[in-house]
Amino acid sequence: MKLYSVILCGGRGERFWPGSRRSLPKQFVTLFGKRSLLQATSDRVRSLCPPDRQLFVAGAEFGPVLKKQLPVASRNLVFEPFGRNTAPAIGLAAIRLAQRDKNAVMAVLPADHLVEDRKAFLACLRFAARLAEKGLLVTFGIPPTRPDTGYGYVQSGARVASSGRLAGFEVKGFREKPDAATARKYLKSGDYYWNSGMFVWRVDAILAAFRAHMPAFYADLERYGAAIGTRREGRELARLYDRAESISIDYAVMEKARNIAVVRATFDWDDVGSWLALDRHMPKDRQGNVVGQRGLASDSGSCIVQTDAGIVAVLGCSNLVVVRSGDAVLVAHKDKLGGIKGLLAEIGRNKDMGRFL
Amino acid sequence: MKLYSVILCGGRGERFWPGSRRSLPKQFVTLFGKRSLLQATSDRVRSLCPPDRQLFVAGAEFGPVLKKQLPVASRNLVFEPFGRNTAPAIGLAAIRLAQRDKNAVMAVLPADHLVEDRKAFLACLRFAARLAEKGLLVTFGIPPTRPDTGYGYVQSGARVASSGRLAGFEVKGFREKPDAATARKYLKSGDYYWNSGMFVWRVDAILAAFRAHMPAFYADLERYGAAIGTRREGRELARLYDRAESISIDYAVMEKARNIAVVRATFDWDDVGSWLALDRHMPKDRQGNVVGQRGLASDSGSCIVQTDAGIVAVLGCSNLVVVRSGDAVLVAHKDKLGGIKGLLAEIGRNKDMGRFL
Repeated sequence: MKLYSVILCGGRGERFWPGSRRSLPKQFVTLFGKRSLLQATSDRVRSLCPPDRQLFVAGAEFGPVLKKQLPVASRNLVFEPFGRNTAPAIGLAAIRLAQRDKNAVMAVLPADHLVEDRKAFLACLRFAARLAEKGLLVTFGIPPTRPDTGYGYVQSGARVASSGRLAGFEVKGFREKPDAATARKYLKSGDYYWNSGMFVWRVDAILAAFRAHMPAFYADLERYGAAIGTRREGRELARLYDRAESISIDYAVMEKARNIAVVRATFDWDDVGSWLALDRHMPKDRQGNVVGQRGLASDSGSCIVQTDAGIVAVLGCSNLVVVRSGDAVLVAHKDKLGGIKGLLAEIGRNKDMGRFL
Repeated sequence: MKLYSVILCGGRGERFWPGSRRSLPKQFVTLFGKRSLLQATSDRVRSLCPPDRQLFVAGAEFGPVLKKQLPVASRNLVFEPFGRNTAPAIGLAAIRLAQRDKNAVMAVLPADHLVEDRKAFLACLRFAARLAEKGLLVTFGIPPTRPDTGYGYVQSGARVASSGRLAGFEVKGFREKPDAATARKYLKSGDYYWNSGMFVWRVDAILAAFRAHMPAFYADLERYGAAIGTRREGRELARLYDRAESISIDYAVMEKARNIAVVRATFDWDDVGSWLALDRHMPKDRQGNVVGQRGLASDSGSCIVQTDAGIVAVLGCSNLVVVRSGDAVLVAHKDKLGGIKGLLAEIGRNKDMGRFL
């Protein structure tokens, strides 16, 4: 068995505007340390999956930045015509990988998640790969640390495997983003995990699941597979995506399949969902401010202040996110960051401003 | 009698950082409309003082920007070696003007005040000039519209002249910046005016006042005057300033002289003391935001949002001043703008940041 990583680079990273732009979504941006989230994701798995066993699914427009940031061969770049959520992206990678190595085990990893404990991550990944070899569709469940209403949850059942601190469980069910009371109940029970969006499975197992649960898509996928390397490849890829439903792998496959398991993560995990992630991963001053280079927070508390050029000074403010990136500045109250998609829509509607998205 | 304007350009405009910089203080910046405050000040008096009767007192480093913004002849540029508050600046302009026209009446006007009703302003100026011709040192008093604790006040006495709505009064005294209760008392009494820092007097009258109330400075000033146009001029100017006390004309002369009068302003006046001036002079959206071009205030109220480049978006905030100017961004709570000098001091102490002042 060979383990491959399929790194999903399709996120738009809107909630990291203006650090993240349409032309350079957050996975390509260096938010922490010296490596972009994408580079850090690739680095993390490198000892199990050397560069030639790392595939990247992205829009073709991100080919140049991918090649700039990583030593990636063209055959490992899987370009989507446009984004269609995770199910089509994973199907596309799976059909291509199956032609290369029908015994492949594939780990699906979003390019924009942050995991700092690499050793624990790799131990979990090896453990999950062993379950995957048996034909299970394995998802990583993150033990919740707060009653977060922003994630889907996985309810675990009986233990199916363990090794030291590592454990895999049956899945009783997937739960949508809960309300606050339900989230508190989940947190308390100990049986519920955050649905991380990271998976491990045999390539034949996930293709069988597509055949069972997305038969129309699977038929198109086979047709595309037969065209790979021929003159028809581009046309068939366009057809595949034109006809594909935009749907997550969770909805499309995991919630329907029976051969699933959840591996409890023993590593730290952050999906870097918004600027607030900096509060969790960057050092703070005594007033609780996270202030980057050439930022200044005077008579201020609990602010995030970041700039990639010039100087940004905050005076007498609390609970703000202040970010300058390139030609754009965002000043947002931390409690109102949920409104950023609306803000970006507003910017998009303004003919003088759309180019700043 | 010929009326001259002496436009004082020495302000540092710190409270308008980052719109105002050491290299380009606020009087040279276009904050309202299409003309800088300096240009607007020059424009305002032009019908009474044509360009050749407008003198500008400034640091020599501002010669180029003065010539760029206005059609000013070199003989009308009065360069100070360094700033020494208003008394030395006015003395310097007076001694030079006296050599050119010993009967001159001079209006002293800060370059950074905003007056929108030009017609009323000119009527007051003409009225004040007539009082000045009699030998009075005339100051303009602004009828207060709020119990402001940020201004000095002039207490008026008996009426000494009037013409229609225009009136001049004896001065009972000058009052320092009051506390809030005293400011309310002043506002209620009707006898107190804001001390505007605008004056009109005969050049011989102000020189006589310097002789009486700043005799040492006056002696140096005469010595400098005798050197004008000689090889010694530069050396004597340096000596004059090295020895001069840094003091305002109010403290040095007006509070001591007896031949003073206050003319009640019938025009609008704003000394544009901070970014909050934009709230008074710029249109607001329905949420009370003053948003400039390529600014955006979403789910926000009572914010001032200005940028000279790129885009600045404010989300979910209240009562903020958000300004991007060049390479610097300021985000300040309106109630904490008083702390801006401390902030600038902090920036100045940081070796990577001082260049942004």
